[in-house]
Amino acid sequence: MSNIRVGMVGYKFMGKAHSNAYRALPMFFPASVKPVMKAICGRDPEALEAARAQFGWETAETDWKQLIARDDIDLIDINAPSDAHKNIAIAAAEAGKHLFCEKPLALSLADAREMLDAAEQAGVKHMVGFNYRFAPAVQLAKKLIADGRIGKIHHIRAVFLQDWIMDPEFPLVWRLQKEIAGSGSLGDLGAHSIDLARFLVGEFAEVIGMSETFVKERPLPSAMTGLSAKGGSSGERGPVTVDDATLFLAKFANGAIGTFEATRFAGGHRCTNAFEINGSKGSIKFDFERMNELEVYFADDAEDVQGFRRVLATDAAHAYMDAWWPAGHTIGYEHTFTHEVLELMKAFEEDRQPSPNFHDGVKCQEVLEAVDQSIAERRWVSISEL
Amino acid sequence: MSNIRVGMVGYKFMGKAHSNAYRALPMFFPASVKPVMKAICGRDPEALEAARAQFGWETAETDWKQLIARDDIDLIDINAPSDAHKNIAIAAAEAGKHLFCEKPLALSLADAREMLDAAEQAGVKHMVGFNYRFAPAVQLAKKLIADGRIGKIHHIRAVFLQDWIMDPEFPLVWRLQKEIAGSGSLGDLGAHSIDLARFLVGEFAEVIGMSETFVKERPLPSAMTGLSAKGGSSGERGPVTVDDATLFLAKFANGAIGTFEATRFAGGHRCTNAFEINGSKGSIKFDFERMNELEVYFADDAEDVQGFRRVLATDAAHAYMDAWWPAGHTIGYEHTFTHEVLELMKAFEEDRQPSPNFHDGVKCQEVLEAVDQSIAERRWVSISEL
Amino acid sequence: MSNIRVGMVGYKFMGKAHSNAYRALPMFFPASVKPVMKAICGRDPEALEAARAQFGWETAETDWKQLIARDDIDLIDINAPSDAHKNIAIAAAEAGKHLFCEKPLALSLADAREMLDAAEQAGVKHMVGFNYRFAPAVQLAKKLIADGRIGKIHHIRAVFLQDWIMDPEFPLVWRLQKEIAGSGSLGDLGAHSIDLARFLVGEFAEVIGMSETFVKERPLPSAMTGLSAKGGSSGERGPVTVDDATLFLAKFANGAIGTFEATRFAGGHRCTNAFEINGSKGSIKFDFERMNELEVYFADDAEDVQGFRRVLATDAAHAYMDAWWPAGHTIGYEHTFTHEVLELMKAFEEDRQPSPNFHDGVKCQEVLEAVDQSIAERRWVSISEL
Amino acid sequence: MSNIRVGMVGYKFMGKAHSNAYRALPMFFPASVKPVMKAICGRDPEALEAARAQFGWETAETDWKQLIARDDIDLIDINAPSDAHKNIAIAAAEAGKHLFCEKPLALSLADAREMLDAAEQAGVKHMVGFNYRFAPAVQLAKKLIADGRIGKIHHIRAVFLQDWIMDPEFPLVWRLQKEIAGSGSLGDLGAHSIDLARFLVGEFAEVIGMSETFVKERPLPSAMTGLSAKGGSSGERGPVTVDDATLFLAKFANGAIGTFEATRFAGGHRCTNAFEINGSKGSIKFDFERMNELEVYFADDAEDVQGFRRVLATDAAHAYMDAWWPAGHTIGYEHTFTHEVLELMKAFEEDRQPSPNFHDGVKCQEVLEAVDQSIAERRWVSISEL
Repeated sequence: MSNIRVGMVGYKFMGKAHSNAYRALPMFFPASVKPVMKAICGRDPEALEAARAQFGWETAETDWKQLIARDDIDLIDINAPSDAHKNIAIAAAEAGKHLFCEKPLALSLADAREMLDAAEQAGVKHMVGFNYRFAPAVQLAKKLIADGRIGKIHHIRAVFLQDWIMDPEFPLVWRLQKEIAGSGSLGDLGAHSIDLARFLVGEFAEVIGMSETFVKERPLPSAMTGLSAKGGSSGERGPVTVDDATLFLAKFANGAIGTFEATRFAGGHRCTNAFEINGSKGSIKFDFERMNELEVYFADDAEDVQGFRRVLATDAAHAYMDAWWPAGHTIGYEHTFTHEVLELMKAFEEDRQPSPNFHDGVKCQEVLEAVDQSIAERRWVSISEL
Repeated sequence: MSNIRVGMVGYKFMGKAHSNAYRALPMFFPASVKPVMKAICGRDPEALEAARAQFGWETAETDWKQLIARDDIDLIDINAPSDAHKNIAIAAAEAGKHLFCEKPLALSLADAREMLDAAEQAGVKHMVGFNYRFAPAVQLAKKLIADGRIGKIHHIRAVFLQDWIMDPEFPLVWRLQKEIAGSGSLGDLGAHSIDLARFLVGEFAEVIGMSETFVKERPLPSAMTGLSAKGGSSGERGPVTVDDATLFLAKFANGAIGTFEATRFAGGHRCTNAFEINGSKGSIKFDFERMNELEVYFADDAEDVQGFRRVLATDAAHAYMDAWWPAGHTIGYEHTFTHEVLELMKAFEEDRQPSPNFHDGVKCQEVLEAVDQSIAERRWVSISEL
Repeated sequence: MSNIRVGMVGYKFMGKAHSNAYRALPMFFPASVKPVMKAICGRDPEALEAARAQFGWETAETDWKQLIARDDIDLIDINAPSDAHKNIAIAAAEAGKHLFCEKPLALSLADAREMLDAAEQAGVKHMVGFNYRFAPAVQLAKKLIADGRIGKIHHIRAVFLQDWIMDPEFPLVWRLQKEIAGSGSLGDLGAHSIDLARFLVGEFAEVIGMSETFVKERPLPSAMTGLSAKGGSSGERGPVTVDDATLFLAKFANGAIGTFEATRFAGGHRCTNAFEINGSKGSIKFDFERMNELEVYFADDAEDVQGFRRVLATDAAHAYMDAWWPAGHTIGYEHTFTHEVLELMKAFEEDRQPSPNFHDGVKCQEVLEAVDQSIAERRWVSISEL
Repeated sequence: MSNIRVGMVGYKFMGKAHSNAYRALPMFFPASVKPVMKAICGRDPEALEAARAQFGWETAETDWKQLIARDDIDLIDINAPSDAHKNIAIAAAEAGKHLFCEKPLALSLADAREMLDAAEQAGVKHMVGFNYRFAPAVQLAKKLIADGRIGKIHHIRAVFLQDWIMDPEFPLVWRLQKEIAGSGSLGDLGAHSIDLARFLVGEFAEVIGMSETFVKERPLPSAMTGLSAKGGSSGERGPVTVDDATLFLAKFANGAIGTFEATRFAGGHRCTNAFEINGSKGSIKFDFERMNELEVYFADDAEDVQGFRRVLATDAAHAYMDAWWPAGHTIGYEHTFTHEVLELMKAFEEDRQPSPNFHDGVKCQEVLEAVDQSIAERRWVSISEL
């Protein structure tokens, strides 16, 4: 199986990121199994055709059921809004298609579990789009932890801070509507922090959270206008039905403890997906706004020169970097998707499940749901309750 | 009242910091009411005399009751271990002495309230030693918030991270024993974060926390050995009875929300007393390891040059700084105490209560106790319950 | 002219960077005139075919003269080693091909001038590859200066620091041989700093420099092995004939003054292409290792909040960024080339010379040659002398 | 000799810094020989008495000759304006007084040499006030270099950037008048960089420089008003006779090379006394605005975790720090003077010359003069010429 024929549902932000990854892969990782950009799928024919031409897909489909029905498609890439994930994924699995789904996997844990079951029963491969794992600096963090160089982990503090809806006049886009987005800052941003914590620290044991919606009403957008959402509003206002910010405490199965925060009201933070982990032998820090860097501290460095090292994770010694440019020549956000797709293709090459897969999507959803429940019931919620 | 005659109980870490402040004040703030270093008090006569000579106190007393009884003392400065605060403060107040007490005010909220009552009934002045308020960068934060330049506050995230007991062989010093210290990381470090949050954000409404003791037994120290505690242990071990780390979530009366963390297990952080506050119009960041700096973000800066400013708070425009050195010439930890003592002296000059005073000590203790209770009972605890 | 058919000479580091830019352009800047990847050219047929397939060129040519002779080629992209630039460029110009040439334009000022003359006489478009101009943060610097927001410029201090040949056993690759590379750190790295200084500050008036070769002999490489050059050496050694480091002082025509340093011996600096500019109204700082950021200081900010702002130049307000990802989602090294090619295509669209062009290549070469002469003759050399 | 009786000439900026050091020494370094603050000397009796009282000197003298004549004085501390250094120092030496003189030692190399000769002939101790050597982070840099942990030094780049006279309306204070100050940015700021380079890298071999005065005329101050110099001007203007900025290149006797820059026109830099040194095994970086930190890079760190470490030089492992506060509790500008005076007192204790002494003052002056000459004659000047 040297080529994987992809049908992609969705063509906005994530659709663009995935398309770029498919295009970049053969150039930078030429030895990889190749994704073939077979078909792109969306509802608006005109916008779809524009995206098809721009992104370089062979064909277009306006009905995802048609897409799934095609026998020249091996893999369905789902990056439509979150409320559409479940139906597409299950139908695709039943049609024997492999699955690559954006996070959060679903609007609820029950849905996510159904999706996992469907994928497992169909015997297809399934991947979930936690792209931040694939920043080389995050891969370095993983390696340091896995190799025991940070020791037993005591702490994680993770934040995902943005500021794009601080303006009360920013319109009520779909990401602010619970029935479509499922969740606000928690599902959109916190889900990434949760996945990184699972990837680096281990499984969550129990959580307690709180959330807040600072701006309770916003102007209705005149039309769906994507993430930037600048421009006209209809004059009317509607209720914001998701959280602007969610905080929670966590205890992990291995005894580590952590604080988590996701917010869209942290002025000055465009995209601060950051964490720090402290272990018995050292510490690591990451901030996505400086994604090529990992700060690392070792407690056993010589006494007079102990301190956080700013490691520029662009050397050949760092994951994926020998495929790109010489040391010191940085990469950007989009490269996390190229690496993600590379890992997906490797799973085909080695005929195994990719990682992270729907199991990880479900585990993340468990934590999200536990946090939600802990907020609703104002009590600690154990993951094992769910 | 141009001179205030001070009797100081305690001569270790805080005793040294306070002594230095008394010595520095007349040189750098010559217009101020002057503290007179009348008497220093401690139990070990030899060590006490050494401290007296080194720090420059006129006389020494080995019994704090004797100290209080002296009529050439106006102010009792209490920086003995926390379990001794209450008795000394109440007796001193009853003797009509003004009070300057290190934090945490007491081992319990009940005790703290008794101390406040005693001070109020005696009609004496009372100050509590939350010295970090007096870093010029923190004063700048206060000013920006008070002037509305950050807008309505939405978030605070505060950490106080240290790493001095990460080594499991570090001995069981008094700060690790509940009966003397009252509390571990929470009371020692978290108390400062709580006070800064009250100073900058406002009153706490409710909290929920968790805590952990990572190293449960430690070698008994051969003798009490101060903060560094290097050197011999007796070979025996004893239980650590305080928290190594405490985390909590908080809701404030004004609607702001926050995360708090205090730990002594964050490798690479010698003394990271740090916070970030996000308001509707901007953000501020502070880290005590770079105490001369405040990072400030304004959401209404021109679109193309928005970003956190690194303000070096050493200009004449910054609190206290015209008394020290030209712009760009930094100050250090000890200066926070000099400013604190200056504020205490100003209260005498203007015949009013200093700030922060025992009321603030009590309010801080309320939060500490609410956090403790929330941990013990695994539930949200409202400050108003206490 | 909606498509430009490109023939590219060279397929190593720069060939890969240019190929990626041609591939990315239609996806991210779909409105642009399109480059067509017609033919790639190199001497080793096997390696060339591998590159052709990997990078996505339609055809391959092993003789650049053949490439130039083809009538389905509009533009010759020259990124062969520096000693080959001149002959290819002049022949291509004479054949009526447009030119896109990597820096440094030539091995000497005389050669560079010949190339410019040839291009001008042929009436073709010509661009030179000073890609760092096209980082959005550098574009922001340009805009701030052009709009007078930094005031009259007094200072520039520019460094280009690398550390890839610090190991004395690193082999004698072509970049260390004067007859091929023309120059060492000065031509390779310093040329970028000089171009940025011209772009941002203005024309150089006079210079004086010094240079050093710290490691005078190195192992001969067993075969040409690219930039990383790891692996086998033949055991023999040969003389390093270029500079490891070059420093110079400069006076600009507008009265600004500056220091410049290019070195490959600055441990810890993988690719620190950095500058700071101070004007009468403010300052700007850039470091390519954090290429998404520009630090900006305005002297007229309010007195209490003056400080360098860390501007993350990823907002829609920043050049090129609306074509990529939402604010806060960073880009990398390769994107500078995509923007560069976009500017080249815009020149075709608007039928004008692109910028920077061979004129800029010549002006840069003048400064390089003046520095070399100032080193050889140990005296200030005026640009007007050359 | 357990006490050193000090007579200090000058009571402005440096007088205050020295006074504070004398006051702090016995408290923080109680084992040291003690300076006794015997007499302060200045011309304006009223201001002098105020300073005497504020700083804590026993007596005051309005004539430095009287001061020198007193037999209860062991050490003359000279921090009067630079043009007064020579006469006072020589007279004091001839009277058998030990000498502690602020930098720059004199207005010319000839004067500096006379001062050294006088001190040597009189057999007195002599120290020069290069206080930045005594920041613990700089001491750490020295130790790392001395122990060979950075390897053979290749590069230094040193800047001393300030911005206090950027405003063209800032008045013509004495530091801007050549006849009093001797030099502008070079002597005031560059002298510190030169001394640090000598301390850390070694002796200078040859230099070439350039300088500029950006604002050629300024308002005359209504009265001498110290460093801040805010407030009234007489309306008249006078010529600025010193350099606003001076840059130079240097070659060192051991083969290292360097760039140097001193300016008072670098907006946003209140006091950036910064340097970076690159050796064959590693690098170090220092910036006085973050004086508690040293950044250190080791080329032999494990491949995947190489990077500059941010060492907070506040541990007991760092010079002087066990005398102050626990790890992580920073110190400030003034502490460099306390350490300097400690070193002076140690010299008395061990009956040897302190370091840096007048020899270092002369060596620094040689470089200053060589730079001046290189500017005047527009050529490289060797130190050995002078």
